[in-house]
Amino acid sequence: MTNTPLSMQETEVLNAYWRACNYLAAGMIYLRDNPLLKEPLKPEHIKQRLLGHWGASPGLSFTYIHLNRLINRYDLNAIFLAGPGHGAPGVLAPVYLEGTYSEIYPNKSEDEEGLLNFFKEFSFPGGIGSHCTPETPGSIHEGGELGYSISHAFGAAYDNPDLLVAVVVGDGESETAPLATSWHSNKFLNPIRDGAVLPILHLNGYKINNPTLLSRISHEELESLFKGYGWQPFFVEGSDPMEMHGKMADAMEACVLEIRRIQQEARGSGKAVRPRWPMIVLRSPKGWTGPREVDGHKVEGFWRSHQVPLSGVRENPAHLAQLEAWLRGYRPEELFDANGSLLPELKALAPQGQRRMSANLHANGGRLRKALCMPDFRNYRIEVTKPGTTSAENTRPLGKFLRDIMQENMQNFRVFGPDENTSNKLDDIYQVSKKTWLADYLPEDADGGQLAVDGRVMEMLSEHTLEGWLEGYLLTGRHGFFSTYEAFVHVIDSMFNQHAKWLEMSKAVAWRAPISSLNLLITSTVWRQDHNGFTHQDPGFLDVVVNKSPAVTRIYLPPDVNTLLAISDHCLQSTDYINVIVCDKQKHLQFLDMDAAIKHCTKGIGIWEWASNDNGVEPDLVMACAGDIPTKEALAATVMLREHFPDLKVRFVNVVDLYKLTPAAEHPHGLSDNDFDSLFTLDKPILFNFHGYPWLIHRLAYRRNNHKNLHVRGYKEKGSINTPLELAIQNEIDRFSLVIDAIDRVPSLKVAGAHVKEKMRDMQIECRNYAYEYGADLPAADSWVWPY
Amino acid sequence: MTNTPLSMQETEVLNAYWRACNYLAAGMIYLRDNPLLKEPLKPEHIKQRLLGHWGASPGLSFTYIHLNRLINRYDLNAIFLAGPGHGAPGVLAPVYLEGTYSEIYPNKSEDEEGLLNFFKEFSFPGGIGSHCTPETPGSIHEGGELGYSISHAFGAAYDNPDLLVAVVVGDGESETAPLATSWHSNKFLNPIRDGAVLPILHLNGYKINNPTLLSRISHEELESLFKGYGWQPFFVEGSDPMEMHGKMADAMEACVLEIRRIQQEARGSGKAVRPRWPMIVLRSPKGWTGPREVDGHKVEGFWRSHQVPLSGVRENPAHLAQLEAWLRGYRPEELFDANGSLLPELKALAPQGQRRMSANLHANGGRLRKALCMPDFRNYRIEVTKPGTTSAENTRPLGKFLRDIMQENMQNFRVFGPDENTSNKLDDIYQVSKKTWLADYLPEDADGGQLAVDGRVMEMLSEHTLEGWLEGYLLTGRHGFFSTYEAFVHVIDSMFNQHAKWLEMSKAVAWRAPISSLNLLITSTVWRQDHNGFTHQDPGFLDVVVNKSPAVTRIYLPPDVNTLLAISDHCLQSTDYINVIVCDKQKHLQFLDMDAAIKHCTKGIGIWEWASNDNGVEPDLVMACAGDIPTKEALAATVMLREHFPDLKVRFVNVVDLYKLTPAAEHPHGLSDNDFDSLFTLDKPILFNFHGYPWLIHRLAYRRNNHKNLHVRGYKEKGSINTPLELAIQNEIDRFSLVIDAIDRVPSLKVAGAHVKEKMRDMQIECRNYAYEYGADLPAADSWVWPY
Repeated sequence: MTNTPLSMQETEVLNAYWRACNYLAAGMIYLRDNPLLKEPLKPEHIKQRLLGHWGASPGLSFTYIHLNRLINRYDLNAIFLAGPGHGAPGVLAPVYLEGTYSEIYPNKSEDEEGLLNFFKEFSFPGGIGSHCTPETPGSIHEGGELGYSISHAFGAAYDNPDLLVAVVVGDGESETAPLATSWHSNKFLNPIRDGAVLPILHLNGYKINNPTLLSRISHEELESLFKGYGWQPFFVEGSDPMEMHGKMADAMEACVLEIRRIQQEARGSGKAVRPRWPMIVLRSPKGWTGPREVDGHKVEGFWRSHQVPLSGVRENPAHLAQLEAWLRGYRPEELFDANGSLLPELKALAPQGQRRMSANLHANGGRLRKALCMPDFRNYRIEVTKPGTTSAENTRPLGKFLRDIMQENMQNFRVFGPDENTSNKLDDIYQVSKKTWLADYLPEDADGGQLAVDGRVMEMLSEHTLEGWLEGYLLTGRHGFFSTYEAFVHVIDSMFNQHAKWLEMSKAVAWRAPISSLNLLITSTVWRQDHNGFTHQDPGFLDVVVNKSPAVTRIYLPPDVNTLLAISDHCLQSTDYINVIVCDKQKHLQFLDMDAAIKHCTKGIGIWEWASNDNGVEPDLVMACAGDIPTKEALAATVMLREHFPDLKVRFVNVVDLYKLTPAAEHPHGLSDNDFDSLFTLDKPILFNFHGYPWLIHRLAYRRNNHKNLHVRGYKEKGSINTPLELAIQNEIDRFSLVIDAIDRVPSLKVAGAHVKEKMRDMQIECRNYAYEYGADLPAADSWVWPY
Repeated sequence: MTNTPLSMQETEVLNAYWRACNYLAAGMIYLRDNPLLKEPLKPEHIKQRLLGHWGASPGLSFTYIHLNRLINRYDLNAIFLAGPGHGAPGVLAPVYLEGTYSEIYPNKSEDEEGLLNFFKEFSFPGGIGSHCTPETPGSIHEGGELGYSISHAFGAAYDNPDLLVAVVVGDGESETAPLATSWHSNKFLNPIRDGAVLPILHLNGYKINNPTLLSRISHEELESLFKGYGWQPFFVEGSDPMEMHGKMADAMEACVLEIRRIQQEARGSGKAVRPRWPMIVLRSPKGWTGPREVDGHKVEGFWRSHQVPLSGVRENPAHLAQLEAWLRGYRPEELFDANGSLLPELKALAPQGQRRMSANLHANGGRLRKALCMPDFRNYRIEVTKPGTTSAENTRPLGKFLRDIMQENMQNFRVFGPDENTSNKLDDIYQVSKKTWLADYLPEDADGGQLAVDGRVMEMLSEHTLEGWLEGYLLTGRHGFFSTYEAFVHVIDSMFNQHAKWLEMSKAVAWRAPISSLNLLITSTVWRQDHNGFTHQDPGFLDVVVNKSPAVTRIYLPPDVNTLLAISDHCLQSTDYINVIVCDKQKHLQFLDMDAAIKHCTKGIGIWEWASNDNGVEPDLVMACAGDIPTKEALAATVMLREHFPDLKVRFVNVVDLYKLTPAAEHPHGLSDNDFDSLFTLDKPILFNFHGYPWLIHRLAYRRNNHKNLHVRGYKEKGSINTPLELAIQNEIDRFSLVIDAIDRVPSLKVAGAHVKEKMRDMQIECRNYAYEYGADLPAADSWVWPY
């Protein structure tokens, strides 16, 4: 196959279509009336508040319509991601012109009235967003926060061998950290099994007020950079539209043919090697075809065209005239008929039906989503004949469960982790699928390297890239599981925020089908970072999570193996949530057999009767906890309390589902006040031993009746090189501190408990002394088990 | 100048020094006794818990001692940053050998006893951290969380023309997003004014369990990548130590000479252009010189050497023997005298005094810090003759203030922002210093581009890189100011966490002098992101901040121009804090003249008597607020309440210093309970209109006496394309919602207020209808001023 150059006539028609796009993009920013310019432009036709981003728009639609041409020519199955999503007019325009917008939103019909609504409502209260929001047909990438377009694109391409993911990357976005490393995603794409990603780096030269870095280095450096990243760049450079159509058609067809050649070669030979995938560098003027100069300042091809190139149009007749000339320059009367519909010969350029990028089901992934085939999680249980007496690595059985899920779902399930799946004890998964790796191999990799070109475990030391891949994978209808270090999950706080916002908005978009939840296992938790020290201790991600909508956020702290299995099974089958699961990977005490675990997880919170001695009457103290290590310490404290104060009635409450603490009106999982009161009493002291920062519990429970008696312990930013128990002591979540807390808070213990408090303090000193002497915990404390 | 090849004798001595480093690094991981191997190694000499990272250590000390050689030869002023800071043994060893460690920590003396303590305490409770923590002499970069080594290095080099910042970048770290974009920092370094950064990319091939990307691409791609980034890579590849010493000495000297040539050329000509700065790619085996094989598995040169290459040494005699052979292979008896001191001929290799990288004052920046010359901030005040009646852009006078600070401090002050200093209305600063730019220029840049090779305003669309530069700049004793978009400051949550931890730890290190605070202005705030929509609305950074130590965190919400000036003046002169200032850039009501602003900011919280009508008696309602827009809305609500209910006594409280709400025991700024009670009463309803997520106020104030009557309004994740007022209404921080809240909460208003509530709801509907019709706020609401 070779390129077919664009004929003059084809160029003219294509350019007319592009003029229509640009006319629409400008119209969306400016017009509230007179959408076809049937009468002279007057101030009252102009919106009062001019909002939107013109600068990136022409280049976006230029790319979009050139893709359309090749979709038609090669029957491509393609979707479109706009990195600079704030140039939404450049995407919305072709989406409207190909009819999808009107099909979904009937009041934006393909006529003058629909066009008017389309213009008026853009970037207008209650209207159309100024980015490629979830309301945008064909979008899986809003492009509000920058940096994730390439990783989203790769996530979409994985396991979609027939899909072409075209992604426009802004040169502003290219300066961001997440984008800069995501170019390396090509080492994780298998040309046999996966689809293709075609990046179009859009060098329009400027951000809001500055030139961009990549537009201001030499051609040689730029080419060298992308070759170094492993790409083959095709350059399309210029400003004359007719010339540029020819160049773009050539380059894009060359890319499509090269992609097909690569895929055919790999698929024909069955041999997957990393090729040099093609990409396009499109160097075109910012605000292309817009006003060249305004008030003596260069605008087209400069940062002054970033947002609204002509301001004050209602008040400034010269600007109004310039706007009118600009808009009329697109000759709308040659593009739309008298009713405001695009002329048939132009309409014919767009692909049909689901070949339209705006109607491709991959961009409404819930429509393609198939439920996971799930083995029975109960089969991975460990036996717990007596609570709190045996130990196990909490995550290892989960690894076996994930392995078998993988086995059953080798087309639509992947597991993600930044170089940590082995460290996180999930390595049984490699028995059925190894780590995807299309970079070079060495002989020693055979010794436990677990690398394979067709692996389904995604490992790269970039939380950003992993999260981006996973989001792209889920948004296109598949399933995934991501485990990461607790302290460093903050690296993706911002991505979590954006994905939560996307999910919440999507729920309100009727035509979007639910997608699989994003499942995030946080492990290597703070309480076992005693040896890595202070930099590795940060359980604060949960504080970020709870700021996002209750409609999409879930937090679980399973305390042991069986609860972790039950929770994971639930999360993997859910949709439209971000499920955050916190559970440490090390060996820990086991509390519940599988039946008890299922019951406990179903309720999300409950009294552990085997650990309580209130026997159904009002207790003197509620000992509550959430998280594996805090639970163990709370249990050990309970035993000491009962030993020292045999008459004391302690109720032991464990929380798996953190949102149970929230009032029912605030979160769908929240307990009613009655239920909360019946667990936590109306007036008895509550000690709450928490995995994270203690004030999070107050933030959730401050409205509860017995909040005044709620005393929370958690991590309070005290740590360096410690032993686990010494770290607990420093932050007062240890058993001894809890006993002291109880004595301070239960009135009947105040006097009698004085000597016990002394003893507890002595014990703490003994533990610390032992730690400082031997670098380890007192064996008796380390191997503590539930004695009753 | 040309290279001087390493003589055989020089190589021997250098290698002996390196053997000493490696011996120490291994000793730190394993030994608790017998530090000089004077007797056969026994299990009881071995630590119980083997912790630390061997893998990166030999390469780190290899680089360190080659730098030492050139420091001596060329009298270099150099510091050393270890990207893979978890290879701390490879840094601590040469730091100890050059005597600094013993000078600072006398019990780690340069003899057998000191050596024993040095070994025993490494990665041991209460002892020496396993990263390059603040306790490490010469460190400004802990390397716990990965990704920031290059940006820290550039920050250190700016405005230090004589400094060479050598930075080892791990190939694992290279996969992270922040590191990947930070290579572009070379477009922001001026060879005349700034020092040099010499990156040593350490390709040791592996992370914990995986190969690294950059070690598994072709030489051609690797070289192309770094040339594309604008560097000139020198390759040092191999595994034979003696050969590698020669290669490294050659490459490093070539780099130093090239750096000198570049600097001399630029400084001689006075013409600053971007050169192709040299860098080194060091490809050496992971765990170099360690065990080749353990139990039949390859270890040296493989990921199995990442942490502790030989485990179970106390229990496994074969491993013990292998350890002993490994350690004795360094021939410690030829390196140390009988007392355990390094032999004089080796000691002579290290630089002297402050030329030692571990004793270079630049790495203890507080020692070099000079206070800023500060113009009087009062000179930038705006006149406020009557509170709440005039408007101004809150940040513009701050821009003038920063401009004049810049003018007075052209050697040690820089301003940072991701392409937003103009957008953030701080552009007056360009009058004295433009944006640093050493990439290409175009003629149109003359029209408002504000670029200059000697600019001191740092703009790049990477919050990560900016934050890293700023941290490096502050850590080496200078001053800075960073402004950024509120929603996207979450991008650097993790960096904030790490810097806060560094500062807190540093305060406990007696020899570290205080450094300038990190001043972060958060602007383009949530309440004015009505047009950018939901993705741009996130005031949650404060929730991350409050998790960090009260010793280092400060949060201010100045409501207007004069308070912002007063707060900024204070912050810029402070040390060892992270000051977070939240203030929007748009035009807002002005409340306080400069005298009142100073008083208010000094107290941090206070009653605005002009807005209150309780006249010193107990009010019926406390109307509290924090933040510019919430303050305006609270005032407007107060007016309506007073109009409708003339007998109602309202006390108006504004909070500038958010930590005033915290109990005094929890934060040094916290009000005493008495003071809090006297402001907020013991039992009257409090409405608190807050800038951020509402529960943050509860988290700070839940222990206060009147918490049960505290009702907080704030952003609760409701927004899309709105007008400012409509966005406020959606989140119920608007004046009408506050009046309704007051009626619901003040007992005396409940009945009488019913019709007022109706009216408020009607007003909300009217505002929304207007917004939906005109895309703007009701003029009456928009231009509201304080009427009394």
